[in-house]
Amino acid sequence: MIIDKLFKRVESASPICVGLDTDISYIPDFLKEEYDSISDLVFEFNKRVIDSTKNYVAIYKLQIAYYEALGLEGLDAYSRTLKYLRDENLLSIGDIKRGDIAATGDMYAKAHFTGDFEADFITVNPYMGFDTISPYLPYMLNNDKGIFVLLKTSNEGAADIEDLETEKEKKVYEHVGDYLAELSAGYMGICGYSSIGMVVGATHPEDAESIRGRYPDNFFLVPGYGAQGGKGSDIKKYMRENNGAIINSSRGILKATLGKEVTRENFGSFFEKAVLDMKEDLEG
Amino acid sequence: MIIDKLFKRVESASPICVGLDTDISYIPDFLKEEYDSISDLVFEFNKRVIDSTKNYVAIYKLQIAYYEALGLEGLDAYSRTLKYLRDENLLSIGDIKRGDIAATGDMYAKAHFTGDFEADFITVNPYMGFDTISPYLPYMLNNDKGIFVLLKTSNEGAADIEDLETEKEKKVYEHVGDYLAELSAGYMGICGYSSIGMVVGATHPEDAESIRGRYPDNFFLVPGYGAQGGKGSDIKKYMRENNGAIINSSRGILKATLGKEVTRENFGSFFEKAVLDMKEDLEG
Repeated sequence: MIIDKLFKRVESASPICVGLDTDISYIPDFLKEEYDSISDLVFEFNKRVIDSTKNYVAIYKLQIAYYEALGLEGLDAYSRTLKYLRDENLLSIGDIKRGDIAATGDMYAKAHFTGDFEADFITVNPYMGFDTISPYLPYMLNNDKGIFVLLKTSNEGAADIEDLETEKEKKVYEHVGDYLAELSAGYMGICGYSSIGMVVGATHPEDAESIRGRYPDNFFLVPGYGAQGGKGSDIKKYMRENNGAIINSSRGILKATLGKEVTRENFGSFFEKAVLDMKEDLEG
Repeated sequence: MIIDKLFKRVESASPICVGLDTDISYIPDFLKEEYDSISDLVFEFNKRVIDSTKNYVAIYKLQIAYYEALGLEGLDAYSRTLKYLRDENLLSIGDIKRGDIAATGDMYAKAHFTGDFEADFITVNPYMGFDTISPYLPYMLNNDKGIFVLLKTSNEGAADIEDLETEKEKKVYEHVGDYLAELSAGYMGICGYSSIGMVVGATHPEDAESIRGRYPDNFFLVPGYGAQGGKGSDIKKYMRENNGAIINSSRGILKATLGKEVTRENFGSFFEKAVLDMKEDLEG
């Protein structure tokens, strides 16, 4: 099960998930002078971030919106980055937040668990109902894939829908979570977690312990650390015995070279230091 | 406002939205023998569907999942089809169901309202909260774009989340709708509808009149006609004075040639007939 590989990476490296939300403005000039095509430029930047951080990182998450915004060339870079991670025996999340039903859901599953855009995990949006989850399940067993379903996200707007209290004395996100928890049993790894994971934002430390307690079998993907306000000292609340969660940082890593004297030689060291600083903050 | 263009198309042509959910299996052999690349094949099929139906159709909707499932080549066909519609002065919906926040939401807006994947309208998923809507608003005013937000979808799973009754005596989809209705005032066309539309499935005729009455200013994109069970005789309930809604059919049109004696000459006539049959069913 893919979740066992993730569990081991958290154990041996760290719970850090590096978010490759690559914006052209994060890329140093010397690299821009070297590559003419957007695809080459973005891929080469990602490759250097990966190469210089891979020993301290559990998994890499690609936010597909950044690549879509660069058009066909951007998606070429997305595809090449996922392939590079696979070739290097590293784990990947396609942060695609897709959610659709029936034949359309099947197409998204095929699109992101096979072919040009194949990732180990993807993120899934459950708004349309639980038939948005089912298209991914066969791939989890047959192709060793996993999902992280949006539960309680890190943004302020999480209160608008996810936190609504329903007449069944459950919040909307608890309806989603309780359904997933029940479904999880069929997709358990030997590590004690299911390949059905949940997205739980780092900006809700007051709820973290109760969510962790309610869903002990589910791995959490935790966005919102750093720039959005999530604190390293709260992260333990999302974990169980120092595992069971991955903590995402995107801009905190990718923007590490901005405002620095960057050269071809020292370039990677800024990303390495940013990840090591984050590791220390999480462990502190 | 883009919504005025759509209103006029419904008035002059029909409320039909043709869903270009193009699967390779829908494409006749003679066309497959002619084109080597997936991008050419899918684009040429779409082009023929468009050419033979454009006089009777309000708008074309591209379900991006089908194109993503074909990888980079598929997205090239997606991009070319949108460009062809624009060149032909026809309207398009990118059925992308994206929903994300802050910088990521901005990237989705940029991706699908400009550049390679530019469409006139896109579909939006509100699960993460109302900050998933705001990234699209500037484009609506500055680039003359529109959105259709998922409200109450056509699938069975619509009951799982969208229909949940909250303690405020509103269903989840009503929370979404009421927010959108309030927001709509700033984006009104002269036709009396807002460029902020709603997705309301054709499979809920029992609720259609109350939803129509509650949101008089919003155009509805209505999926679920035909294969999913939505009936032509119910469609008036989603409209107001024979306008204000577009009714999607995908497989009902695209599969029109399957099992028929198809030649280069008669190919387009099957799509034309399927659309005219649907027009009659809706008007009947």
